[in-house]
Amino acid sequence: MIKKIISRPQSNWTKDEGLNNNIVISSRIRLARNLYKLTMPSFQKEADASFVLDKVKKAVDALGLQNKELLYFYRLNELTDIEREILFEKHLISSEHREGKANKGLLINERESVSIMINEEDHIRIQTLFPGLQLDKAWEFADDIDDKLESQLQYAFDQKIGYLTSCPTNVGTGLRASVMVHLPALALTKQSGIVLNSLGQLGLTVRGLYGEGTESIGNLYQISNQVTLGQTETEIIQNLTTLTKEIVQKEEETRKWLLKENLLQLKNRVGRAFGILQNSAILNTQEALNYLSDVRMGIDLGIITNAISGNNLSELIVLAQPGFIQRNMETTLEPIERDAIRADIFAQKFRVGGAK
Amino acid sequence: MIKKIISRPQSNWTKDEGLNNNIVISSRIRLARNLYKLTMPSFQKEADASFVLDKVKKAVDALGLQNKELLYFYRLNELTDIEREILFEKHLISSEHREGKANKGLLINERESVSIMINEEDHIRIQTLFPGLQLDKAWEFADDIDDKLESQLQYAFDQKIGYLTSCPTNVGTGLRASVMVHLPALALTKQSGIVLNSLGQLGLTVRGLYGEGTESIGNLYQISNQVTLGQTETEIIQNLTTLTKEIVQKEEETRKWLLKENLLQLKNRVGRAFGILQNSAILNTQEALNYLSDVRMGIDLGIITNAISGNNLSELIVLAQPGFIQRNMETTLEPIERDAIRADIFAQKFRVGGAK
Repeated sequence: MIKKIISRPQSNWTKDEGLNNNIVISSRIRLARNLYKLTMPSFQKEADASFVLDKVKKAVDALGLQNKELLYFYRLNELTDIEREILFEKHLISSEHREGKANKGLLINERESVSIMINEEDHIRIQTLFPGLQLDKAWEFADDIDDKLESQLQYAFDQKIGYLTSCPTNVGTGLRASVMVHLPALALTKQSGIVLNSLGQLGLTVRGLYGEGTESIGNLYQISNQVTLGQTETEIIQNLTTLTKEIVQKEEETRKWLLKENLLQLKNRVGRAFGILQNSAILNTQEALNYLSDVRMGIDLGIITNAISGNNLSELIVLAQPGFIQRNMETTLEPIERDAIRADIFAQKFRVGGAK
Repeated sequence: MIKKIISRPQSNWTKDEGLNNNIVISSRIRLARNLYKLTMPSFQKEADASFVLDKVKKAVDALGLQNKELLYFYRLNELTDIEREILFEKHLISSEHREGKANKGLLINERESVSIMINEEDHIRIQTLFPGLQLDKAWEFADDIDDKLESQLQYAFDQKIGYLTSCPTNVGTGLRASVMVHLPALALTKQSGIVLNSLGQLGLTVRGLYGEGTESIGNLYQISNQVTLGQTETEIIQNLTTLTKEIVQKEEETRKWLLKENLLQLKNRVGRAFGILQNSAILNTQEALNYLSDVRMGIDLGIITNAISGNNLSELIVLAQPGFIQRNMETTLEPIERDAIRADIFAQKFRVGGAK
């Protein structure tokens, strides 16, 4: 299963239709859980960690999951560097888990719509991914998996404060809901800073494509709740959904304004980005994502036609990543070699089509 | 005839094959002549100028020229601003002549391979244009026209110093021989400055695309003799031909070196330039010429295939010019409107093809 996952840029979960999936790329739910009376991962000895890993694996085996819920188990230190890199690039494991230390585990389904990290910051981190703005569906799915696990495992839980977690910012619901949004028009008109900064006051956090500490490239932003305590899961999800819809509306209004007032400039930007993706021989990740952002906006607005379908941005983002580029190589590539392969891949992807 | 000339970007003289026409775009000969005992143009009264104009026109009529030598006569003040602008852009008249003052004349053949300006800086300026490196042929043609004119007109000529001209720098042969060269590889490797500056010590001058005081854009340079006195016409032409061949060789060696040592970077530069020309919605003259330079080098080196033939650079340079863009419009266009039309023209021209 892992070979299949790392060999395809597009995860199967992206093939479902989602609301606003031209601006909201994906919705994600993450639940942090820990096992009752066992040492938290940051203080674990190897024996503790091994014990937790076995316990969770056995619990999952005992559940006899089927279909979309069927989970495959991997120890991270048994995967290659490239495999872990690609899992990270596909948002299936965290930066920390990517290091591949002993007794770190992963459970993942074939669709890549659920992944469970074992012995990350918490004993258990359940993550579900849905295309577009579907936080409620992602939550239902995560909640269902969580209930099933809880039927086999005793969680560290306090009646008054809720789920206990390694980091106090996750205590309570242990829930982090997030959306990945693509805001090229707001970025182009220099409004993204203002719009996104205002979210901080509403209890939300904005990060780049690969979470904490990463810069925004390709006008892609992850927006998530900051608070996990004092709000129910439904309230957290409802709040983020409402604010995401407002941001989507702002982005859409700005796109309409650009189409009406700056059509030529827009066509020029989008067309040149398309021409560069179609004809480069050297292309780094950041350039690829930035030009991809312009082209995607061009596709959404009907300026670019006959090109690749608008639904595959998730796939193209993964395609642009260094790990994925190296997947079939025996040795690590030099950056210039990766940039050349990336340029070839994109030239191939954008072989046809163009601006109207 | 003038309507035909201003409506086509490609002059018929460019269709002949010329030596090294992938690096040497064109060869030009200009002869400065004045009529015996008549006031030079800078001191002319309108009556003097009108007299010269009639005299030259009658002389040409009396010759009964045929075929390639058949000349059409125009008074510059009877042409429109756009017509004069396009004649300038096609190198058929000078910047000064473009102003279209009264009693300035032009004689031109259908192929645009010979143009004679009347009452420019001198009474008569004969210019011939050939594609590639063919200064000898351009000289033969100019010399023949000159002999025919001299059979009807008495030139201001001194047995000791030669032809008398308005500006002392033209006295003697009155000959300016020049070549237009395209040196993208020397420019890319920062060698063009060194190579071209050294020409000054060898009696040559380097200018941009539109002569004196214009900057080099699109890596196009006009190289011409500085000295007209103390050398025969043949010596001047031989000297410029020899030095041009040396420059061509340096450019070719540098292209080979780039192909061998920097193929990926070269493909990237050439490919992106092609993609931008193919997909822009706004394109100014300078950008068009600079990207055209990269694409032309790509065509010459076989990196770009299936695109427009490599022989049409002269045409594309004219296509990029503001005057030519405006030719079919009743009113003058704003720069942004011209840039949009130019982008459309180039997108159309580069509709097919691409980098290998």
